[in-house]
Amino acid sequence: MVKIKKTVEELDPYVPGRSNADLARVYGLDPADIIRMGSNENPLGPSSLAIQAINKNLHLINTYPESNIDDLKDQIASYAGVNPNEVIVGGDGADEILDVLAKTLIEPGDEYIVHPPSYMYYEFTFSVYGAVPVYARWDVEGNCLDVDSVLEAITPKTKVVFLCTPNNPTGGLIAKKDIKTILESTDALVVVDEAYWEFSGVNNLELLEEYDNLFILRTFSKVMGLAGMRIGYGIGQKEFIEYMHRVKPVFSLIKLSYIAASATLSDPEYIKESTRLSIDSREFLYDEMSKFPELKVFKSFANYILVDIRNTGMNSKKITVKLMENGIIVRDCSSFRGLDDYWIRVSVATMEEDIKFINVLKSILG
Amino acid sequence: MVKIKKTVEELDPYVPGRSNADLARVYGLDPADIIRMGSNENPLGPSSLAIQAINKNLHLINTYPESNIDDLKDQIASYAGVNPNEVIVGGDGADEILDVLAKTLIEPGDEYIVHPPSYMYYEFTFSVYGAVPVYARWDVEGNCLDVDSVLEAITPKTKVVFLCTPNNPTGGLIAKKDIKTILESTDALVVVDEAYWEFSGVNNLELLEEYDNLFILRTFSKVMGLAGMRIGYGIGQKEFIEYMHRVKPVFSLIKLSYIAASATLSDPEYIKESTRLSIDSREFLYDEMSKFPELKVFKSFANYILVDIRNTGMNSKKITVKLMENGIIVRDCSSFRGLDDYWIRVSVATMEEDIKFINVLKSILG
Repeated sequence: MVKIKKTVEELDPYVPGRSNADLARVYGLDPADIIRMGSNENPLGPSSLAIQAINKNLHLINTYPESNIDDLKDQIASYAGVNPNEVIVGGDGADEILDVLAKTLIEPGDEYIVHPPSYMYYEFTFSVYGAVPVYARWDVEGNCLDVDSVLEAITPKTKVVFLCTPNNPTGGLIAKKDIKTILESTDALVVVDEAYWEFSGVNNLELLEEYDNLFILRTFSKVMGLAGMRIGYGIGQKEFIEYMHRVKPVFSLIKLSYIAASATLSDPEYIKESTRLSIDSREFLYDEMSKFPELKVFKSFANYILVDIRNTGMNSKKITVKLMENGIIVRDCSSFRGLDDYWIRVSVATMEEDIKFINVLKSILG
Repeated sequence: MVKIKKTVEELDPYVPGRSNADLARVYGLDPADIIRMGSNENPLGPSSLAIQAINKNLHLINTYPESNIDDLKDQIASYAGVNPNEVIVGGDGADEILDVLAKTLIEPGDEYIVHPPSYMYYEFTFSVYGAVPVYARWDVEGNCLDVDSVLEAITPKTKVVFLCTPNNPTGGLIAKKDIKTILESTDALVVVDEAYWEFSGVNNLELLEEYDNLFILRTFSKVMGLAGMRIGYGIGQKEFIEYMHRVKPVFSLIKLSYIAASATLSDPEYIKESTRLSIDSREFLYDEMSKFPELKVFKSFANYILVDIRNTGMNSKKITVKLMENGIIVRDCSSFRGLDDYWIRVSVATMEEDIKFINVLKSILG
């Protein structure tokens, strides 16, 4: 066989998740009855304007996407309050923006900083480019960033610092003053991942004017209700964005995604309702789960809640299987670096689904 | 500003193409009247089963795509006559498969061989990884591969050899015996790009049994009529495919694309009609364009035709503008390495559009 790159040989083999249909079959469920509380999705469903827009353009799917998406960039810029030339849009969600960041910056041996437990895709993407992860630390008990651990991790080889706020999977925020401290301590690109910012009401856009090494990562997969369409965007200095465009795949944003994103941005009522519903669900789930003495529930500013389940007598694998037998998917967090086998993450759902989830929890724990 | 990777600093700035709406405005046309003969698309439109399938699943676009797409792999394997574990499916067309090949194989300084004029995206993708292009040669006059130029380009540093058959933009085929000669002359991966194979009726799948360094690249953008949905696939040795899966983006194939690809494969009548229509259009365009003494028209086995226009007294920029003024987009080939400023590529269209194109040509060439 041909010679594989060494870093790839050393990666773990890929094991795809089970499909919904497969899960339903194994657990004897109706696929339509499965409650999805494992992937931080939007329980409101997509904007009806997005669906209408897609419907109107289905006859065009035999033609290539436009490479010029200036009007969508204009809309995003207006939503975020920045200039269109400070925006880059990706066609595989924020994950594509991560890949383009690596393509723009990383040479083998370069270092990047992550603060486990956090979003694992940073490492998945960057390791392929021969970049070396340096681990700072998220203080899980305090649900805040250990800022000193980031400052200590910075070296002359640091190319990127990832800060996730609200942090996935813990739900905690990073204080703006801490982000400023980090921005001032390095010439590396500081990527602030704001995938969930709308659920917290806090973002860091105003720092863009002051710091030329700040990059903000966003997505249409959460509050915008378009996880299945894979649209992400980044906001940074216009010169840096221009370099990113040189290496970005040209046609990765499919036409229907482009249209759906545009329609959703022109539906402010949907975005408002979508935010409200997720926050209401989060607070309801927090209050209800906090009533179980066996659960340690973490305050969250996102659309999911981290739960320490070690006092239930079960590990995360066991409790997720028990929930699945009752038709509920939550995230087993044992694969997150920095967490052990006793954590689950529960995503918001509709109020009806939340109530069902709490009742199932009662039956399992009770 | 942060430090950009040197190879990226040296790339040309990205200039997006003009959108259809923009072209229509500039040339005073109705966007609906523009005839697209520039992008090798499918004039039949998508399969009606694909549209129906998408329609039925629009309510699910707020949820993530399945990471398990075994059933689509089964269908592709059955269409191609290979095993499902020899198939990898990409979510940004064949272009994503190219990127995953680079991720799996390329370390800075590795070499790859291309045979200009050919598909330019090989270089766009591989250069970002620090790979060095080595140029073999396509014999344009004979419209065939200069096999010796490939053999001479092979060095111990060669990691990938790209062979495009039918070749884009020239339309010529590479003889199977020449592919075998190259496969036997190197341990590098030989990527045979069969994006357009259905229009030629010839493919190279049977060589997979004999050569473990062969990889075949395919797409749903041409005969399958799904260019806008960005689905590509590769076929190779199962061990190699397994390595590729380790670095492939997990969610890049959106759910609607997955569903559309699956529906199209279950519509053999559509595939047959789609192939026939494009071949009929190609032969009609070849015969009609050959009647112009100023045009040198090249025999094609794909869904486009290369035309040498130097005897028209116009260069490719001038003639494409004149065609555009008449509402027709063709491809100005001056940006293809290995071609000068006197080539255009004409993609197949409907018979009605073909006739209009020929009449416009008559009026332009006088």
